[in-house]
Amino acid sequence: MTADPAEPFTATPSTPPPTPRTQVKRLPELGVYDRETIAAICDEALICHVGYATAAGPRVIPTIHVRIDDTLYFHGSSASRTLRSLHDGVDVAVCITLLDGIRFARSMFEHSMNYRSVVAYGRARPVTDPAELEVVARSITDHVAAGRSADARMPSEVELKQTLFLALALDEASAKVSTGYSEEPPEDEALPVWAGVLPLRVVPGEPVAHPNLDPALPTPGYLADYRRPRS
Amino acid sequence: MTADPAEPFTATPSTPPPTPRTQVKRLPELGVYDRETIAAICDEALICHVGYATAAGPRVIPTIHVRIDDTLYFHGSSASRTLRSLHDGVDVAVCITLLDGIRFARSMFEHSMNYRSVVAYGRARPVTDPAELEVVARSITDHVAAGRSADARMPSEVELKQTLFLALALDEASAKVSTGYSEEPPEDEALPVWAGVLPLRVVPGEPVAHPNLDPALPTPGYLADYRRPRS
Repeated sequence: MTADPAEPFTATPSTPPPTPRTQVKRLPELGVYDRETIAAICDEALICHVGYATAAGPRVIPTIHVRIDDTLYFHGSSASRTLRSLHDGVDVAVCITLLDGIRFARSMFEHSMNYRSVVAYGRARPVTDPAELEVVARSITDHVAAGRSADARMPSEVELKQTLFLALALDEASAKVSTGYSEEPPEDEALPVWAGVLPLRVVPGEPVAHPNLDPALPTPGYLADYRRPRS
Repeated sequence: MTADPAEPFTATPSTPPPTPRTQVKRLPELGVYDRETIAAICDEALICHVGYATAAGPRVIPTIHVRIDDTLYFHGSSASRTLRSLHDGVDVAVCITLLDGIRFARSMFEHSMNYRSVVAYGRARPVTDPAELEVVARSITDHVAAGRSADARMPSEVELKQTLFLALALDEASAKVSTGYSEEPPEDEALPVWAGVLPLRVVPGEPVAHPNLDPALPTPGYLADYRRPRS
């Protein structure tokens, strides 16, 4: 675990074999199981979607996360009914999706997406150790913008009590990576229909200063030249 | 229901009251329940995340969708274990998230996101009626790029059999819309830390033609000037 914002989070070298849940069965050639690919997708994405079962049915919530080594941390208000139920240690499925482009095929059927996604399964544990909490608070801030934790005020004790961090070990995770063009039946290739890929990117705009910000404060370099992933 | 790609999908005027599941309890001031807001978020997003429970724990998958009137359709391969289990009519939670920007506060604690999200709950039904299937196939294609269904080849009977469309009535849905700046305690405002918003947008790149595309075929207007939402 590292709290140094100048250091990219370390990918663990371990590559656990896929489990029945993480083995990519649909389009198995897209399945990727190495830790480095999984880590890179977690690090580039700003948010994840967390799914879990409740007595009133399934739930899915979007939330910010950070990966540190082989653990995925996500957080929310300790007043949230969602996080309260996760606090009790229920099973979660976390999905992280980066959309890289739209594949246009001559047929409607062969249209698809280029994407990189991760799914991870397991039971999340609440983070209660003060030293771990501080590392996670810094790291999640640097996940949003590398270097930001050196500027922003650390959470007070009261604020930390209002935030629940949960940790999910990436022991059972897999990635799916789709690149390139649609594969089409040869008879479609003669159709007079445009085919190819429309790339998509998440692009930052100009930073908009808070109305009450001291105009003498410069825009930090990590915002003026914002990019994901951080490295 | 409309299959005319020139017509934006119609938002229904009904505004059902929130249910215990859709009532936004955390930051209730962000909760939005009108059909038009929910429809606009569904229409702008390219993908949704579908959560459901299985005997082996919760699952979340990313998939493309389209909204027609007050129904959300999503699809996948009929060979997929996911879609097979949904086919049996299990409860789903669908989450759609549009990330609009990052809010930078002087404190780590008040950092947050600007976003528009929708959650919808219910039991998905498989689409089996041939007329509805055709409308959904066209509409999902136009959801990706408005007007595309007029160009692309319609699915064959064999292809339709390989695709499972599921329909979820948007009877139990709510939106959450977060805009503006972080609210910060007055004592933080004197800190020499940049605060404000970094806007984020999904931006299309230059369309990349398939290597075997006839170079005489022009790039369609809906790709040369691609934007979301479609209208």
